[in-house]
Amino acid sequence: MLPEKLTIQALTDLYRTGKASPVTVIEAVLERLSANPDAAAWISTVPAEQLRAEAAALAAAGYDPCKPLWGIPFAAKDNIDTAGIPTTAACPAFAFTPATDSTVVAKLRAAGAILVGKTNLDQFATGLNGTRSPYGAPRCVFDTDYISGGSSSGSAVVVARGQVAFALGTDTAGSGRVPASFNDLVGIKPSKGLLSTSGLVPACRSQDCITVLAHDVADGDLVRRVAEGFDAADPFSRAPQARPLRLSGFRFGVLTGAEKEFLGDHAAEALYDAAVERLVSLGGTAVPFDYKPLRECAHLLYGGPWVAERLAAIEEFFEGQADAMDPTVRSIVAGAQGKTAVEAFVGQYSLAFYAQEIARLWCNVDLLLLPTTPTIYTVADMLADPIRLNSNLGRYTNFVNLLDCAAVAVPAGFRPNGLPFGVTLIGPAFTDTGLAVLASRLHGKGEIMPTIPDDWLPIVVVGAHLSGMPLNHELTSVGGVKLGDVRTAPDYRFYTLAGTVPPKPGLVREPGFAGPGIAAEEWALPPAAFGQFVARIPAPLGVGKVTLDDGRQVTCFLCESHALAGATDITPFGGWRAYRASLG
Amino acid sequence: MLPEKLTIQALTDLYRTGKASPVTVIEAVLERLSANPDAAAWISTVPAEQLRAEAAALAAAGYDPCKPLWGIPFAAKDNIDTAGIPTTAACPAFAFTPATDSTVVAKLRAAGAILVGKTNLDQFATGLNGTRSPYGAPRCVFDTDYISGGSSSGSAVVVARGQVAFALGTDTAGSGRVPASFNDLVGIKPSKGLLSTSGLVPACRSQDCITVLAHDVADGDLVRRVAEGFDAADPFSRAPQARPLRLSGFRFGVLTGAEKEFLGDHAAEALYDAAVERLVSLGGTAVPFDYKPLRECAHLLYGGPWVAERLAAIEEFFEGQADAMDPTVRSIVAGAQGKTAVEAFVGQYSLAFYAQEIARLWCNVDLLLLPTTPTIYTVADMLADPIRLNSNLGRYTNFVNLLDCAAVAVPAGFRPNGLPFGVTLIGPAFTDTGLAVLASRLHGKGEIMPTIPDDWLPIVVVGAHLSGMPLNHELTSVGGVKLGDVRTAPDYRFYTLAGTVPPKPGLVREPGFAGPGIAAEEWALPPAAFGQFVARIPAPLGVGKVTLDDGRQVTCFLCESHALAGATDITPFGGWRAYRASLG
Repeated sequence: MLPEKLTIQALTDLYRTGKASPVTVIEAVLERLSANPDAAAWISTVPAEQLRAEAAALAAAGYDPCKPLWGIPFAAKDNIDTAGIPTTAACPAFAFTPATDSTVVAKLRAAGAILVGKTNLDQFATGLNGTRSPYGAPRCVFDTDYISGGSSSGSAVVVARGQVAFALGTDTAGSGRVPASFNDLVGIKPSKGLLSTSGLVPACRSQDCITVLAHDVADGDLVRRVAEGFDAADPFSRAPQARPLRLSGFRFGVLTGAEKEFLGDHAAEALYDAAVERLVSLGGTAVPFDYKPLRECAHLLYGGPWVAERLAAIEEFFEGQADAMDPTVRSIVAGAQGKTAVEAFVGQYSLAFYAQEIARLWCNVDLLLLPTTPTIYTVADMLADPIRLNSNLGRYTNFVNLLDCAAVAVPAGFRPNGLPFGVTLIGPAFTDTGLAVLASRLHGKGEIMPTIPDDWLPIVVVGAHLSGMPLNHELTSVGGVKLGDVRTAPDYRFYTLAGTVPPKPGLVREPGFAGPGIAAEEWALPPAAFGQFVARIPAPLGVGKVTLDDGRQVTCFLCESHALAGATDITPFGGWRAYRASLG
Repeated sequence: MLPEKLTIQALTDLYRTGKASPVTVIEAVLERLSANPDAAAWISTVPAEQLRAEAAALAAAGYDPCKPLWGIPFAAKDNIDTAGIPTTAACPAFAFTPATDSTVVAKLRAAGAILVGKTNLDQFATGLNGTRSPYGAPRCVFDTDYISGGSSSGSAVVVARGQVAFALGTDTAGSGRVPASFNDLVGIKPSKGLLSTSGLVPACRSQDCITVLAHDVADGDLVRRVAEGFDAADPFSRAPQARPLRLSGFRFGVLTGAEKEFLGDHAAEALYDAAVERLVSLGGTAVPFDYKPLRECAHLLYGGPWVAERLAAIEEFFEGQADAMDPTVRSIVAGAQGKTAVEAFVGQYSLAFYAQEIARLWCNVDLLLLPTTPTIYTVADMLADPIRLNSNLGRYTNFVNLLDCAAVAVPAGFRPNGLPFGVTLIGPAFTDTGLAVLASRLHGKGEIMPTIPDDWLPIVVVGAHLSGMPLNHELTSVGGVKLGDVRTAPDYRFYTLAGTVPPKPGLVREPGFAGPGIAAEEWALPPAAFGQFVARIPAPLGVGKVTLDDGRQVTCFLCESHALAGATDITPFGGWRAYRASLG
C-alpha cells in the first residue's frame, strides 16, 4: 500500500528496501488516474503501456542510488516541452509537438523520474487563479467550490491528490507559489536562471522561472537541485551559486500597519501571525518593514511595460489567432499593443530604483516572511471579477522575480473552514538553499541537510567555535554549515591556553603519541567567509592541516608551540566539551 | 614654469614641495585660456575672479595631503551638472542652470579640485566624432583638419592642450575613449554604476558612464577612485568592488582574420600590432578570438531599441523643440519613435544572448586589447557622411557598456602623418584596477600601485611564494598584489624543511630569541582567493599571526613544530632568498 501522499522520500525508502518497485508504483498511479481522471487537471497523460514499459525497464535495471529520482512519478505543466507530447500552454490552437524534452525535464528523466503527464494551467501562464483555460478549472483539493490557484493549477492538484510525487510548475508573478498555498503544498521558486527555461513557452521571458510543487521542502529542494544548472541554450541561465543565509540568529521582515492586508480574511491573518511566531521560536527576529515599495514595484509586471513580454512570446500567433484565446488572457496580452520602447526603458528605470530599495532592505533583514496570498476565492467569485481578484492574489508574490529573489512557499495551517493557508520565505537571489532549510523547519517537517556548494571550504574546529560555544556565531553568521562530528587521529595533544578570553584550547601534533584523539566538528564555509574567518584568528592560534581518525587531512585550528609553555595538557578529556563540562 | 602637459602628479609634487601654489597654477591656466580661448572646446568657463578666489582660499588653508586633488584644475563635459553654471548638453534651447553639483563633481571638489569650465560635446552625447554641436567642432590637437573625436570632444582637447590637468567625459558607445585616442590621452571608462550618474543629462540612461580624460593612467585612475562610490540618488549605482585581474601570465584577446579591420588605415594596423607585441613583452599571451558576436551586439545600441533611451531622456523637449537640435542628432533620436515595447524586450533577449557569449570569452581570456578606433577622419569627411563614418568610429567601442565591461583607452604611438593612435584594454565589470595597472605598463608610464579594496586580506610569505619563486604564481594568478618587502620581529627562527618539493622553509616563533628577523613579502588577496589559498596549504605548514619588525601582526606562513626535528636552522641567512642564493 502506497501512502496517500506520494513523497520522494517515502518512495525511495520503499525502493531501497525492496518493499516496492516502479512497476507497483506505476500501477498504483494508473489506478489513481482512473479513479479521478480530472480532465481539468490533466491535459494529457502518457499512455499506460508506455508508463508500464518505463517502470519495467527501471525495475529490470535495478535500484540505482546514483539516480536521486529513480522511479519517481511526476507531472509537468503543459507549457514545458516533453518529447512527443503536445505542448498546448492551455491554448489548443497554439499547440505544437516538440521533438525533444526541455532541459529541465531531460535532467529529471536522467535522474530516473517517470513523466506521467502534462497539466493544465492558466493559458500562457497568465493568471494566478486556475480558471483561465479551455480545459476547465481545476479545483482546490480541499473544497471544490474554491479555485486551485494558478497558473500552475493542474500541477498543484495532481500532486496534492497523490497522483504524482511532484510536479513542475512555472512562476512569473506567483504561479508556482499561489497554487501550492491553496493545496497545502510546498512551492519552490528558484532564483531566476537557476533552472533552464530552454523548452518553456515564455510568459515574461526575462522573469520566468520553472518551479517545483511537492509535499515537503526536502522533496522540492531535491528536485530543484537535480533540475538546476547552467544551460548555454537559455540566455537568462545563470550558473548555480550560493549566497549564505544566516540559519540562526536571523532577522526576517514581516508585514506591519496598513501594508498588512488580508482583504478581510481574518483567519488568514491569524495564521500569518502564528507563522511569524513560529519562525521567532525557530531562532529568528521578526522585523516589521515597509512593504509599500515592493507592492509598488509589483505593479510593473501587469501595469507596466513587462506585459509586452507576454505579447513578444506569442506575437505571430496573437496576430493571426487571438480569437482562439481565453478572453481574459487575450485582453491582458492586448494591453501590450501600443506600448512603446520608451515606456519599456522607463519601466527598467523604475525597476532599477526598486532594486536599490530592496538592496537596502537586505541590509536590515536576511529574509522576508510573507503570506503567499492575502485570501482565497471561489471559482464563481473569480469568474465574476477575473482581473481584480487575480490581482489581489498576487499582492505578495508579484515583486519577487522582478527584484531577483528566491522564494519557498510552505503550508502554514488551515482556516476553520478547512481551507489551507500558506506563507512564503523570500530572500535575495541564490539564497535558495538557506531558504529551504528554514522553510522545512517552519513547515515542521524536520531538518533538511543543506547542500554544500562545491567551492565551499571545510574547517575543523576544536574549541570555542564548537556548536553552542561562545564563538560558534562566527561560523553561523556567515552561513557556515556543520558537516558533522569528527575526531582527530590519536597523535594530537590538547592543551588549555592560559589567559584566553573566551577560554580556548590549543591542538598540537606529536608524531608517535597514542592518545584518545580529540573530538571536533567539521564545518563548511563559503571561500570568502573562510578567508575572513582565518584572517581574524589571533596568535598563538592559526590553521593548518589536521589528520582525522578517518585519515582525511582537513584545515583545522592549530597552536604555535611556544604558547604551550606552562599550558595544561587536557588530552585525556578527549575534547573541549568534555573538559569544559568537567569544570562544573 | 609649469610643464606644458599639466598632470596631477607633477602639480601635486610642486604643491607638496612648496614650488607652486594654486594661485600661480590658476594664473597659468588663465593665461593658457587667454592664449587659446577656443570657443569650440569651452562652452563656459568659470569667471577669472572666482577661480582666483578659489585658488587663494586653498593656498591660505595650506596644502592638504588628505585631499588627493588639492589645487588641481579640471573641466567637466557640459552634460554634467556644476552648481550655478548652465548645463547645455550642447543644445542651447535645452539649457538649464542646476543649483547643485552632480555627485561626481561634488566629490572632486571635496578632494580639492578646481573646476575651470564646461566643455563642448556632440549634442546630447550622441556621436563619437565631435562635429555635432552648434558651438562648433573642436579639432584634434595634432592636426586641425581632423576631428577631435567625441562626444567628449571639448574635454579631450582642453586636457591635451594643457589648460586643465584632467576632465570629466561621458561614455555610452565610446564617447570617453574615442576622443582620448585622437588626442594622445588616456580615457578611463569605469564599470557601469561605479561613478554616480546623478546630475548627468542621460544619453542612454541604462548604459551611461562618467569617464576621466587625463595624460596618464595614474592620474586618470586616481580621479576615478576619488569620484567613485555608491550613490542612492542613482538607481544604476553599484557599490565599488574588485574583480581580480591576473597581472602576470595573463591572456588577452586580440583581433584576427576578417574581424581585424582598419578600413585601409595600415599605419593604425601596424601600431595595433606593435601594441599587441608590447603587451606580450609585458607578460601576456595574445589569444586571437572571434570579434563577430561583440560587433553584432554593438549594433543593438543604435540599430536596436536602445536608441529609445535617447528619446526617453529628452522626450518632452523633443516633442516641443526638436527643430532646435543638431539635425544629425535629431534624426538619430527620431529613429526611436515608433519602436515598440515588444522590440525593447526582444532587444533585451538579444543582449542576454551576447552576455552569455562574452561570459564564455572571459573563461578563455582575462582581458581584450582592441584598437580604440579603426581609423580617424577629417572634419570635412565627417560632415559629408556623418552617420556612416561615426558608426565606423564605434566599431570597437560600442559593445563595451552593453556587455558590462570596464575599459581603459591608452595612447599607442603616432602614425607617420603625426596623428596619434590608441588602443583599449577591456575587461569584465570591476576589473578597473587591474586594467589600470596593465594599461599604465603598456603606456610605458611606469608602474602604478593598484588600490587594494578594503576587504582584501594581507598575507606574509617567507619561502616558495616570494616573488620569482616557484609558487609565486599562486598569488599572482588570483590577482594578488604585493604590498611590499617586510621583515619579521627578531624572535623567529627559520628552518629548511627536508624533503619538500619545491623546497620550502619553516618559520617558528621562539620568544626571547634575538635573531636577524626573517625577510618576507606582504601580499594582499581578495577574501575568497585568500581562503582558497590557505585551504590548499599542506601540512606541516599552516598560517597564523606573525609579528613584524614594525610591530604589526599579520597572517603569515608558520610551521608545525614537530616537523622541525632534524631540520636545518638557516636563521642566520635572514631569509629564504639569501639562503637559496648561498646554494649557488
